Amino acid sequence: MAPKNAFYAQSGGVSAVINASACGVLQTAREHSHEIGKVYAGRNGIIGALTEDLIDTSLESEAVIDALKHTPGAAFGSCRYKLAAIHEHRGQYERLIEVFRAHDIGFFFYNGGGDSQDTAHKVSQMGVRLGYPIVCIGIPKTVDNDLPITDCSPGFGSMAKYVATSLREAAFDVASMCRTSTKVFVLEVMGRHAGWTTAACALAADDENSAPHILLLPEVAFNEGRFLAKVEKTLERYGHCVIAVSEGLKGPDGKFISASGLQDAFGHARLGGVGPLISDMIHAKFGCKCRWAVPDYFQRSARHIAAETDLQQAYAVGRAAVEFAIAGKNAVMPAIRRLNDAPYRWDIIEAPLSEVANQEKLMPPDFISADGFGITEAARRYLAPLIVGEAYPPYKNALPHYVQLQNVAAPKKLTKEFAV
Amino acid sequence: MAPKNAFYAQSGGVSAVINASACGVLQTAREHSHEIGKVYAGRNGIIGALTEDLIDTSLESEAVIDALKHTPGAAFGSCRYKLAAIHEHRGQYERLIEVFRAHDIGFFFYNGGGDSQDTAHKVSQMGVRLGYPIVCIGIPKTVDNDLPITDCSPGFGSMAKYVATSLREAAFDVASMCRTSTKVFVLEVMGRHAGWTTAACALAADDENSAPHILLLPEVAFNEGRFLAKVEKTLERYGHCVIAVSEGLKGPDGKFISASGLQDAFGHARLGGVGPLISDMIHAKFGCKCRWAVPDYFQRSARHIAAETDLQQAYAVGRAAVEFAIAGKNAVMPAIRRLNDAPYRWDIIEAPLSEVANQEKLMPPDFISADGFGITEAARRYLAPLIVGEAYPPYKNALPHYVQLQNVAAPKKLTKEFAV
Repeated sequence: MAPKNAFYAQSGGVSAVINASACGVLQTAREHSHEIGKVYAGRNGIIGALTEDLIDTSLESEAVIDALKHTPGAAFGSCRYKLAAIHEHRGQYERLIEVFRAHDIGFFFYNGGGDSQDTAHKVSQMGVRLGYPIVCIGIPKTVDNDLPITDCSPGFGSMAKYVATSLREAAFDVASMCRTSTKVFVLEVMGRHAGWTTAACALAADDENSAPHILLLPEVAFNEGRFLAKVEKTLERYGHCVIAVSEGLKGPDGKFISASGLQDAFGHARLGGVGPLISDMIHAKFGCKCRWAVPDYFQRSARHIAAETDLQQAYAVGRAAVEFAIAGKNAVMPAIRRLNDAPYRWDIIEAPLSEVANQEKLMPPDFISADGFGITEAARRYLAPLIVGEAYPPYKNALPHYVQLQNVAAPKKLTKEFAV
Repeated sequence: MAPKNAFYAQSGGVSAVINASACGVLQTAREHSHEIGKVYAGRNGIIGALTEDLIDTSLESEAVIDALKHTPGAAFGSCRYKLAAIHEHRGQYERLIEVFRAHDIGFFFYNGGGDSQDTAHKVSQMGVRLGYPIVCIGIPKTVDNDLPITDCSPGFGSMAKYVATSLREAAFDVASMCRTSTKVFVLEVMGRHAGWTTAACALAADDENSAPHILLLPEVAFNEGRFLAKVEKTLERYGHCVIAVSEGLKGPDGKFISASGLQDAFGHARLGGVGPLISDMIHAKFGCKCRWAVPDYFQRSARHIAAETDLQQAYAVGRAAVEFAIAGKNAVMPAIRRLNDAPYRWDIIEAPLSEVANQEKLMPPDFISADGFGITEAARRYLAPLIVGEAYPPYKNALPHYVQLQNVAAPKKLTKEFAV
């Protein structure tokens, strides 16, 4: 009997190393051709399954598949699309089963964050409730590092390395200029609810006198008075002040600062970026020159400065997903378990999808310093090993040589269209 | 007779490689100890000379001086401070002479952009007019690449490599997500008057279909209607649109767009960033999800992705400055001369300070595509060699290992203070 085919898809915001997970899945599946047939990739995540837009990955060369290890973004396209519960939209699941049956798909690998693990979990329930046997394995990915159970999430380490490196560089810049020019630099980083990336900025500091001087974490309610006092003290002591702020900074009322009632110098409500807003606030108070940066997608796509540890973990969870499936496991996600801080050692365990779906892991209180503006040694011990190693991509014509797949669709077998 | 001492200082906005020029000066001066005595570095540029805050670089080890090659920012501090003309503020020049005489300084090396070359030029005039013989050599540095005569300016190649690399990565991100999420990405880059950095973003494209799809150069008056039509066409064709815009984009009236009468969706004048403004404009017109990035100082300090060519040129102009001085040249700046595009070959010539001071070299018309939204092949031939080579810094604890000098001040010899 021919082995069942597999479906693999990427979901949610992308990262510098999600394609390394794809590479882990595809290479491991190819090694197990007796147990797994073709791997079809969903074009744009689960949408590719619903619309029967299945990419035949067997048409891609081994060299191209291997190059996924050093290519950022989602090679098959990603999506922000959440499946409804089965009782809310049964037709959606019937469609999935129709497509999977038409292409003889018996394995479902879904690569993403909390929402995506929810999708994987729902598909696994579908298998049971609607009588279509399918092996469902989630593969962790989120730059926000907010998945539960797993010690860290692939994608985060590289983003952390990027923000810590870049902030160290900007801090050298500001320290150079502060005598007559910019005295305050504000960096706005991603992480709407969890402060892991903001915390990682602290790795830029060699000692307690180094930048960044202040972190504004989403876990700590913003207090303007205490914050400005800290800025003033920092300016007095060092002549300049470097700040990292989470895009998800909240006021005492729990509302996002970026959308709150704070106004700029002209009395206008500021829209968008909390970084510019914090910068304006300091300028209004102290009159000094302030600059801000919002690297946005740069931070989650910066494959050129990816962390080797992160890359290895991204690949490992992709590989483990296939091995789990072959071993008969179901409705689980490979999770990273930390065995030791220094030297850093880790292995992979399984986490039930039911326990990872829709959960957000925030920074624990003992990772946040007493004044709320920094991190503790415990946090530093946790974060430090995750950014280790420089996994430089190859270069061509002086720029990183990233691959684009052919992404040829498998011939459709169904005549019905499905609107998403 | 003991040789005269030298003064070296860094001025204006910093770069990823200005310290490589410092390294070139210091190492070459040390090799010529019969012709040049100590090198005193001005703390915070010319301000260090005026306030007699002179750093004794002889106290720094050879290893630390060598590490300047891979350290961003200005190791001795920089400044934004322009000397008045001699007839406007004679006292300032008398003070310089007083300080230089007290420390037996006979060489003046000033490292910076157009304004800084103006300072070097004025100091050289001072030598003649006020009867204090001093050899003045300018050393080119500007990420904006707008110095005349020199084929390019050290600092630019690394910034160009950073923006092209990062924009390519962000473009992979947007292409991955555009089916259900972000369709437009706007990158705001530095370069208030000259579009060199905006143009360098085009290097991210492998072919005419690749991102960036649209450049908004400061040399081309912004036309909202034509721009939005181009965005629409790009969205239809590729499903997403990546744009690079200069911070100095101007309207048909010659005024900066960022400070113009354009309003956001709430009728408020937008302050600051033109990137967010362009993003809002597209969102208002097409309703699609738009994101923007303003990397700010990240782009000019990104030593982790510096171009080897740029690094070599930065070092070479520092070395040449000292060699020029020893050879008896005066009131000149080492300039890079291009001998060939491919293979790229260059050497160093001398440019009179009188001809480089206060000049700005804009993008020539034949570097800008017919529709104004891109660059020509001629521009590509010019830009391509400048970003060649990856000059990675050493890493320590997973982050670039940048040095901080001791920066010990030489004992003051004057009793009078001077206010700047």
